[in-house]
Amino acid sequence: MKPIKFSTLAIFAALALVMNAHAETDPLPSWNDGPAKQAIVDFVSATTDKTSPKFVPVAERIATFDQDGTLWAEQPMYFQLLFALHRVGVLAPQHPEWKDKEPFASLLKGDVKGALAGGEPAIGQIVMATHAGMTTEEFDKIVKDWIASAKHPKTGRLMTAMVYQPMLELLAYLRAKGFKTFIVSGGGVEFMRPWTDKVYGIPPEQVVGSSGKTVFQIRHGVPVLVKQPTINFVNDKAGKPVAIQLHIGRRPIAAFGNSDGDLQMLQWTCSGSGSHFCLYVHHTDAEREWAYDRKSRIGHLEDGLDAAAKGGWTVVDMKQDWKKVFAFEP
Amino acid sequence: MKPIKFSTLAIFAALALVMNAHAETDPLPSWNDGPAKQAIVDFVSATTDKTSPKFVPVAERIATFDQDGTLWAEQPMYFQLLFALHRVGVLAPQHPEWKDKEPFASLLKGDVKGALAGGEPAIGQIVMATHAGMTTEEFDKIVKDWIASAKHPKTGRLMTAMVYQPMLELLAYLRAKGFKTFIVSGGGVEFMRPWTDKVYGIPPEQVVGSSGKTVFQIRHGVPVLVKQPTINFVNDKAGKPVAIQLHIGRRPIAAFGNSDGDLQMLQWTCSGSGSHFCLYVHHTDAEREWAYDRKSRIGHLEDGLDAAAKGGWTVVDMKQDWKKVFAFEP
Repeated sequence: MKPIKFSTLAIFAALALVMNAHAETDPLPSWNDGPAKQAIVDFVSATTDKTSPKFVPVAERIATFDQDGTLWAEQPMYFQLLFALHRVGVLAPQHPEWKDKEPFASLLKGDVKGALAGGEPAIGQIVMATHAGMTTEEFDKIVKDWIASAKHPKTGRLMTAMVYQPMLELLAYLRAKGFKTFIVSGGGVEFMRPWTDKVYGIPPEQVVGSSGKTVFQIRHGVPVLVKQPTINFVNDKAGKPVAIQLHIGRRPIAAFGNSDGDLQMLQWTCSGSGSHFCLYVHHTDAEREWAYDRKSRIGHLEDGLDAAAKGGWTVVDMKQDWKKVFAFEP
Repeated sequence: MKPIKFSTLAIFAALALVMNAHAETDPLPSWNDGPAKQAIVDFVSATTDKTSPKFVPVAERIATFDQDGTLWAEQPMYFQLLFALHRVGVLAPQHPEWKDKEPFASLLKGDVKGALAGGEPAIGQIVMATHAGMTTEEFDKIVKDWIASAKHPKTGRLMTAMVYQPMLELLAYLRAKGFKTFIVSGGGVEFMRPWTDKVYGIPPEQVVGSSGKTVFQIRHGVPVLVKQPTINFVNDKAGKPVAIQLHIGRRPIAAFGNSDGDLQMLQWTCSGSGSHFCLYVHHTDAEREWAYDRKSRIGHLEDGLDAAAKGGWTVVDMKQDWKKVFAFEP
């Protein structure tokens, strides 16, 4: 009788294992089955399997994500620029001289296109006028207030609803597998940190971005950090691997971007000696989001597409690969 | 009978609790009982007790540590300078011009004092000549090789044995209580990161330091970061809160230093709105370590001592408060 009892137990145990495997839910439910999803799952499985030659210890599982166009939308213009334009309106009463001074004069007449016709110098002036002259704590509050209520000009949704549901799932999946997720964005580091933890689960110390200079002062006996109208670092293109080295001090094993601004970060990541994974989000869905690449000024993706093809990197076709782009879709 | 059984159980339970409390080992065995140890334990107990008004959520438990003179010794000169002097010797054959060029000429004759007589510009020249011109990966290897074998000129111990045992216990204690420990040092970030994880349990991404500029290049098809002979950031004095803001993005709730170079970091930390703790390590033990403060060039501690007295910060008297300074002591 004993052997029979044992094998009955074994059958139950096997059954339990099978049921357990079935019960394990898909970590990426908004991703359609296809080569992109498969490549992600294969990479994560291999690097987290101790018996695999591709195994990577937890401490080295660093994954870096661009933000604009990779984690949230970036059309019709970078959201931080929308924030800056909003701030110009708020600050205008304190700046009567703006009425006769470009790019502010055009902006205050509602002519955004005219204001931005001045190109990068004009954008620089707008950013400096709206991102400096206050303490870091004051700026933190200004950003929190804006992000809590600002709506996207096309969808009417909160800016924080314009994040890509499949990428949120990917962030959570990587973290569940022991990866440390970082944002490495051209956006201002102090514009992102007040809300990235809530929106992406990425704490302030794991956000790397562009920055202005700050100065430590003691004002009426109280230490403050005052934001200066001077650029400290532009975290774009060749600046990204430099900032990764300076802030993280390890080469990532996975990097995610959507434009040529991310190319050097992906090159740096995917030339590491061990396991690595590079992925481009390709904006191909004009209906649910936007479709743009080689000819777009925002999110320009040209050399990156060529490098991805040559390097065998994963390219996400948003239209094909994503069941859902935004969580608010029906 | 039932009530008796119940109270017997209750007695056993109470006994188990008491035994458990006694079994809990002292997390700071190298600290003598006294006001410094008590202040640390009180702060950690209060900030980690959910019922305390001083409770701080885990995510906000940021603790920053200076390195030289706070975590390891800094006499007779900063250890990174010893590293640089060693490198001058190694590199000299490639630099015949150094024979006639100060500060290198003096150094190569063994006259360290003469070389350093040139002050900060001389030190800057030595650091730049030894910390630039190679890739970040090459430098990483150079540092690892040195730290594995370099001996302290006075004790003959490995440099990594010159760390303070009580501070190692403090780091471990804080981490066990949910604190995230960072180094915020005037030392070079790329000089520290190759070994801080092994020595202090602090991973590269939690090390903030001074830095030189690096440039991203593709050499023969391989992406590299090349260290330039240009200063990027000096992480000292008013630079420390600036770097904390840039790298960590949160105000620490606990900060540990030993010199006036740490004063602004402590001021920034201890002017936060919630719970906070500031501590100075005071070098008072000429026998087991070194005794210096107001009159020393290295680890100059003058304004800091006054600020500590005024602000009620904790000052560790190494001679009184530490049972042991180094682990190698008998």
